[in-house]
Amino acid sequence: MTRFHFTIHATEGKARTGTIRMRRGEIRTPAFMPVGTAATVKAMKPESVRATGADIILGNTYHLMLRPGAERVAKLGGLHRFMNWPRPILTDSGGYQVMSLSDLRKITEEGVTFASHLDGSRHLLSPERSMEIQRLLGSDIVMAFDECPKADQPREVIAASMALSMRWARRSRAAFDAGGEQAESAALFGIQQGALDEGLRRESADALTQIGFDGYAIGGLAVGEGQEAMLATLDFAPQQLPGDRPRYLMGVGKPDDIVGAVERGVDMFDCVLPTRSGRNGQAFTWGGPLNLRNARFAEDQGPLDPRCSCPTCGSYSRAYLHHLIKSGEILGAMLLTEHNLSFYQQLMQGLRDAIGTGRLAGFAADFRRDYFAR
Amino acid sequence: MTRFHFTIHATEGKARTGTIRMRRGEIRTPAFMPVGTAATVKAMKPESVRATGADIILGNTYHLMLRPGAERVAKLGGLHRFMNWPRPILTDSGGYQVMSLSDLRKITEEGVTFASHLDGSRHLLSPERSMEIQRLLGSDIVMAFDECPKADQPREVIAASMALSMRWARRSRAAFDAGGEQAESAALFGIQQGALDEGLRRESADALTQIGFDGYAIGGLAVGEGQEAMLATLDFAPQQLPGDRPRYLMGVGKPDDIVGAVERGVDMFDCVLPTRSGRNGQAFTWGGPLNLRNARFAEDQGPLDPRCSCPTCGSYSRAYLHHLIKSGEILGAMLLTEHNLSFYQQLMQGLRDAIGTGRLAGFAADFRRDYFAR
Repeated sequence: MTRFHFTIHATEGKARTGTIRMRRGEIRTPAFMPVGTAATVKAMKPESVRATGADIILGNTYHLMLRPGAERVAKLGGLHRFMNWPRPILTDSGGYQVMSLSDLRKITEEGVTFASHLDGSRHLLSPERSMEIQRLLGSDIVMAFDECPKADQPREVIAASMALSMRWARRSRAAFDAGGEQAESAALFGIQQGALDEGLRRESADALTQIGFDGYAIGGLAVGEGQEAMLATLDFAPQQLPGDRPRYLMGVGKPDDIVGAVERGVDMFDCVLPTRSGRNGQAFTWGGPLNLRNARFAEDQGPLDPRCSCPTCGSYSRAYLHHLIKSGEILGAMLLTEHNLSFYQQLMQGLRDAIGTGRLAGFAADFRRDYFAR
Repeated sequence: MTRFHFTIHATEGKARTGTIRMRRGEIRTPAFMPVGTAATVKAMKPESVRATGADIILGNTYHLMLRPGAERVAKLGGLHRFMNWPRPILTDSGGYQVMSLSDLRKITEEGVTFASHLDGSRHLLSPERSMEIQRLLGSDIVMAFDECPKADQPREVIAASMALSMRWARRSRAAFDAGGEQAESAALFGIQQGALDEGLRRESADALTQIGFDGYAIGGLAVGEGQEAMLATLDFAPQQLPGDRPRYLMGVGKPDDIVGAVERGVDMFDCVLPTRSGRNGQAFTWGGPLNLRNARFAEDQGPLDPRCSCPTCGSYSRAYLHHLIKSGEILGAMLLTEHNLSFYQQLMQGLRDAIGTGRLAGFAADFRRDYFAR
């Protein structure tokens, strides 16, 4: 049984394309992971998520621990069986959401105590509890528990937070390794912090590499710093992490963010943008984003994107999608989400093919020309 | 080209099973028509609606005339192309919804003027305008324009309303016949009124039969009179209508309503119950309705209905559906709607098979025993 094996097939500049092999399936990189927050990729059946080309989805520890509860998911046979997704699942550690969603947080060396945004109940998340929850869920790729500070804080705050995350990374590693069966079948990723600071990012990368993980995430970006600052950080951060391990940029992003990050050596992504935007009437296309609420689409008989091969573009007009979104119809959310996830996967396939054949520079230039043409 | 042809294959008592042949496809009777109010069967892709076994769906003239507008639908190639449903569509006349949904109604001999519930704009619905709208939509089965009064009013109010509906039925027939191409490809149904009164129902049936329609609907039921009064009316109303034409009971109903109506000679049904209930967390099963919000399902690993062959029952537990409904997830509405529509179609198939083999009495008895067992 292959627990976790990453092969790089080709490189172009800093960019790489490869395959991660795990017992529940292969993950082609660069990979985009649709977000399945509450044990569902919103408005999509799992077989439709797979049909878009997704090899792996993400589940949120914070949401699942509160509802339906990790122990309950375990009792029901684990997250894969519960939600009918037999392929790999990456679960985050809960560290990010507990900071952005919960109330009455208190951070100590031990972990974070907080009140649920659903019912106010008190909970503790610590490296040990996060590993336990991710084990109960049956996660394939487990994320170390970290603190994700806002990027605009003083260097000493960022440094202290990063140091805490590195101590938690060590505790996560120990707790994961003590997890019995899961330690033999799942993978554990560490998370680099340090905001926009090259020196702190280096310290964090070194600490993580010394502990040793199956893959390395770049955390603390896409938190409001803007694309320019993010890409400037990605000019150095990925290279500080081991080259033979997957690099995962958490919570990113817009299609152009992804292209820029792949050029800088990132292998994995997750983001709510294609699903959330789809529910709000926004479609991503090779010609840039479209807001389907706009009245100019009311009699537009064309597909969302003439270059797209998804079921939505094959069977429905912009006029119909405009009508559904204006009418608040669930089918509008379903069809736009399916298109957006398909578009993201077509983008990833384009990036993989381009790197595989040494055409990434041209692919990225063509992408930007068309995407920003309007 | 077959415009409209109804063949009865078998009868048992008053019940019949048969086939309606139209240019866009066959309709097996007794038939249940899912409701696609605003050019979508809510929370379902059209191919999934078809996969449940539906031969025909219903569209609402009132909703479609207001949004996106009948002229716009025509410009976009008609309702079938707009919503990607190539099979037969029955459209109601708008008469029922204009009474139940709009504001500031004024009824005259000419028709009904009203204010849109969406934006307050003023509109007229008359027999002629209703026929025009249904022609613009491209309807396969067009309903005559009628007034649907509440059943609990004095006999003279019901009688006057019925007489008005019969005058409107004659105008509907004339306007439909003047509609050119549609008159040669679509069918027109008249609507019997008269509430619970056998004499008025007889007068209405005679008036409609004299005008002549492809099929005959029983209107003015399922408007709050209760199942007992409805079935008592169905003890005589269907038999007053021509036996060689399909009989359509509008807006009905619960599974047990449908079984009772089929036993009394009804051939076609439509109802929002399976779709609306699905979005609200209610599932119909052979063992009776289930409310998935109920905490007793939180750890129930069984399918919604062990006798059901739908995709939802094949892949998801009651516990997962409970979680989705509690979490307000769109996928919960999708999966429950798909199950409910599948259940309704399995019920119709069961009724058709039973009538075809002379087992309806036993089928209905078994159905009631299991459905009301709890």
